[in-house]
Amino acid sequence: MTVRHSIGIVLFQGFEILDVFGPIEMLGMYPDNFEILLVAEQSGEVASAQGPRSVVDHSFSDDIHYDVLLVPGGQGTRREVSNPVMLDWLTERSAKAQYVTSVCTGSAVLAKAGILDGIRATSNKMNYEWVVTQGPNVEWVREARWVEDGTFFTSSGVSAGMDMSLALIERILGREAADKAALWAEYDWHKDSAWDPFAKAWGLV
Amino acid sequence: MTVRHSIGIVLFQGFEILDVFGPIEMLGMYPDNFEILLVAEQSGEVASAQGPRSVVDHSFSDDIHYDVLLVPGGQGTRREVSNPVMLDWLTERSAKAQYVTSVCTGSAVLAKAGILDGIRATSNKMNYEWVVTQGPNVEWVREARWVEDGTFFTSSGVSAGMDMSLALIERILGREAADKAALWAEYDWHKDSAWDPFAKAWGLV
Repeated sequence: MTVRHSIGIVLFQGFEILDVFGPIEMLGMYPDNFEILLVAEQSGEVASAQGPRSVVDHSFSDDIHYDVLLVPGGQGTRREVSNPVMLDWLTERSAKAQYVTSVCTGSAVLAKAGILDGIRATSNKMNYEWVVTQGPNVEWVREARWVEDGTFFTSSGVSAGMDMSLALIERILGREAADKAALWAEYDWHKDSAWDPFAKAWGLV
Repeated sequence: MTVRHSIGIVLFQGFEILDVFGPIEMLGMYPDNFEILLVAEQSGEVASAQGPRSVVDHSFSDDIHYDVLLVPGGQGTRREVSNPVMLDWLTERSAKAQYVTSVCTGSAVLAKAGILDGIRATSNKMNYEWVVTQGPNVEWVREARWVEDGTFFTSSGVSAGMDMSLALIERILGREAADKAALWAEYDWHKDSAWDPFAKAWGLV
């Protein structure tokens, strides 16, 4: 029997475009296992940081259950860390989700909501110093492509979301499924979560 | 003086999501240099192969000039190679564009229109044998991450579009700009266009 996981990908104005669509490319290889749904505070179109607009499937008020939550980064996170509607919704939904994941500065929003308190997590490296101020009780990991702590998967900046998503596929469907997704996408998966030349490039280690 | 290039990214039902948004992530690092515009046969929403819908900026009838054309791949290309409206529009627009680019099976659509006749080009490796039937007069390159032939940039499958886009940034803005874009996106750029383990994985070499 196939268990289908609903994946709620949270959009907001100014989301980073690859943070969202890199993971969707990988997870979308298995439509029988993953139902990909875009959700935002309000229904309709949401503009990315890069300009292109996406149409969400649900708004927060639709009260849909998501087995997996994914919070992207992007310049819009600077606003969302002070948006109580976003923080409250994430807090409520995270408590019910099987997995809570983020890409890039998405972890700053989760951290600000207190969802990552006591959890090992990472984030974007260029904006790392800002991110850590959003969650003083998070066990921040400076050098990591992504970090898995129980059912929390947080990734480093932008492109790292693809590696993290493959690790999530591995956790749920097994290594062979993750390898196949990378092969189909002709993606050079960084399978070592400790691989992080960008921490060095930004002077964090 | 900054010369701003308009980049027309062609959408159709069933486009591969990373083929479109990987390049936009990279090109979007330079909004003063690149104006990213989504264009489709008709205005409104276009659904990707993975499900999520994008809103286009223009329809074909808006008669906008694009300095750069980018044609993604995806399962929708199987239909678009037989769509005279698409093939005619690409033929007309390619003749006026400064650069013509494709990701994955997007090169099959360009090939079917005759735009790549006599041009060296590559494509997705899993569907390579189908692609080459669409353009018998194209000089297909089996093993390449991407191929540059004059002002034509064609990339291998899905993820390769990011490497090709960085090569396009290098061509237009220089190597330093491309390196910076990769750094900001924490992307492990494959700078060697001959790097292609996927040609071997799919038994093409």
